[in-house]
Amino acid sequence: MTHAREMLDTHPGTAAMDADALIECIEACFDCSQSCSACADACLGEEMVGHLKRCITMCLNCSDVCATTGRVVSRQTAFEPAMARAAIRACAEACGLCAEECEHHAMEMDMEHCRVCAEACRRCEQACNEALTALGA
Amino acid sequence: MTHAREMLDTHPGTAAMDADALIECIEACFDCSQSCSACADACLGEEMVGHLKRCITMCLNCSDVCATTGRVVSRQTAFEPAMARAAIRACAEACGLCAEECEHHAMEMDMEHCRVCAEACRRCEQACNEALTALGA
Amino acid sequence: MTHAREMLDTHPGTAAMDADALIECIEACFDCSQSCSACADACLGEEMVGHLKRCITMCLNCSDVCATTGRVVSRQTAFEPAMARAAIRACAEACGLCAEECEHHAMEMDMEHCRVCAEACRRCEQACNEALTALGA
Amino acid sequence: MTHAREMLDTHPGTAAMDADALIECIEACFDCSQSCSACADACLGEEMVGHLKRCITMCLNCSDVCATTGRVVSRQTAFEPAMARAAIRACAEACGLCAEECEHHAMEMDMEHCRVCAEACRRCEQACNEALTALGA
Repeated sequence: MTHAREMLDTHPGTAAMDADALIECIEACFDCSQSCSACADACLGEEMVGHLKRCITMCLNCSDVCATTGRVVSRQTAFEPAMARAAIRACAEACGLCAEECEHHAMEMDMEHCRVCAEACRRCEQACNEALTALGA
Repeated sequence: MTHAREMLDTHPGTAAMDADALIECIEACFDCSQSCSACADACLGEEMVGHLKRCITMCLNCSDVCATTGRVVSRQTAFEPAMARAAIRACAEACGLCAEECEHHAMEMDMEHCRVCAEACRRCEQACNEALTALGA
Repeated sequence: MTHAREMLDTHPGTAAMDADALIECIEACFDCSQSCSACADACLGEEMVGHLKRCITMCLNCSDVCATTGRVVSRQTAFEPAMARAAIRACAEACGLCAEECEHHAMEMDMEHCRVCAEACRRCEQACNEALTALGA
Repeated sequence: MTHAREMLDTHPGTAAMDADALIECIEACFDCSQSCSACADACLGEEMVGHLKRCITMCLNCSDVCATTGRVVSRQTAFEPAMARAAIRACAEACGLCAEECEHHAMEMDMEHCRVCAEACRRCEQACNEALTALGA
C-alpha cells in the first residue's frame, strides 16, 4: 500500500502526463530501489559472494538511479519533460542491465532473491518505457 | 504492490528482528519518502507558497531521512542494531515533526495533499516505533 | 578538501577510465549535489519565491541526479560502462538545464546563490562530458 | 574545492548556527558519503571479500546517513533545530561505528582504503559533534 495515487490526486496542478503511467512509474521506481538495495545485501550474505560482485555493484547502482528517478517524476510543479526524460532513460537502462544480471544468477545459481529482484527491475523498466511513451519521447 | 516481503523471504540469512515489523518499517519508509517528496512539490505548486516554506523544508528533510532509513533497515547482512536504532530514531522524529506540520496545514488551510502526507508520516512514525520495540530499544 | 583521490588510489582494482577525469567527475557531482540542494533552499527563502518555482524543482532534481551519478562513478568494482554512461548522460543533461535556469535568475534578478549554483552545475556538466569522452562514449 | 561556503554566504537568510561549524559539517558529510560508498566498493573488490561483509554494510549505511545529513543541514530556510539534531545525532553514531570497523581492517589487514575511509568518518563524526554543540544540543 502506497500513497502515490492520493498524493497525485490532491496536487494543485495538472499532471504533465497520463496519470496511470505516472503513478505506475513512481511506484515501480521506489519498489525497485528497495528490491535492488535488498538484493545487493542478500548477495553479500551468500557464501559465494565472490561470484556475485557484478550483481552487487549493478544492484547498488540501479537502486540509486531508481530512487532518483522516482523523485524526479514525483515532482510535477514546473515539470520539465527534458529533465524527466533524461532520468527515465537512465533508469530504463539501469533496470534492463540489472535485470539481465539478476536473471543470470536466478537461472544458473538458483538465487531466489535475484529472481524476485529481476522481476522488480523488469516491472520498472517497462514502467519507464511506458512513461517515455506517455511523455511523447 | 511491493517486493519487500519476497526479498526478505529469499534472503540467505535470518532477519535480525520480527519480520512483520521489519517489512512494515521498510514499506512505510519508502512510501513516506515518496509522499514527502510529492508534498513538498504540491506545496510548491500552491499559490500561497510563501506560507508553506516550513512545510516544504520539513517534507524535503523527512523524505531524505525516510529514504535512508528504508535502506538501512533493508540491509540484514551483518546487521548492527546500534546503526539501525540511530537511523530509526531519527526517522521517527522526522516523521513526527513533519506530520505535525502537515496536519496543521490540512486543518487550517484545507490542504488535502498535506492530509495525505501526514497520514503517510504517522504510519511511518508508528512503524519506526514498533521496529525500535522489536529491536529491544 | 575531499578524500576522493585517496580512495581511488587505495582501491584494489584499476580504474576503468582516466583517473583525473574520474576524480573530477566524482568531486563535481558531490559538490553540485550540495549546491543544488542549497540553491533550492535559498530560492525558497526569497520573498519572491513564487517566481522561483521552476528553479526550485530544477535544483531538487539536479541535486538527486548528481548524488546518484557521483555514487555510480565511485563504484569501480565490476564497473559496467553502459551503466556509467547512462547515469553520466542524465547528469550532464540535468546540470545543463539547471545551469541555464540559474543563470537566468542570476542575470535578471541578481540572485547570487543562483550564480554560484550555476557555476557548480557548469563545472559538473563539463566533468560529465569529459568522463563520457574518457569512457569512449 | 566545493561551493558550500559561497552557497551559504549568498543565502537570503541568516544561518541558524555558527557558519564555520555548519560549513565544516556540510562538507564533511558529503565527503564521508563519497568515501564510504568508495570503501564499500573497494572492500567488494578485495579477494577476501568474505571477511569484509560487516565493513561493506556499515559503509553503505554510513554513506546514506551522511548524504541525508549533509542535505538536512544544507537547508537553512525554516530551519528546525529538532530535525537537524535528530539527523546529526544519527550521523555521528553512524560515523563512529563505521570508523571503528574500518580502523580494525586498516590495522589488522592493512586495508589502506579502510584507513582513508576511517579518516573521513572521524572527521565527519567530529564535525557532527561540533555542529550539535553549536546548536546548543
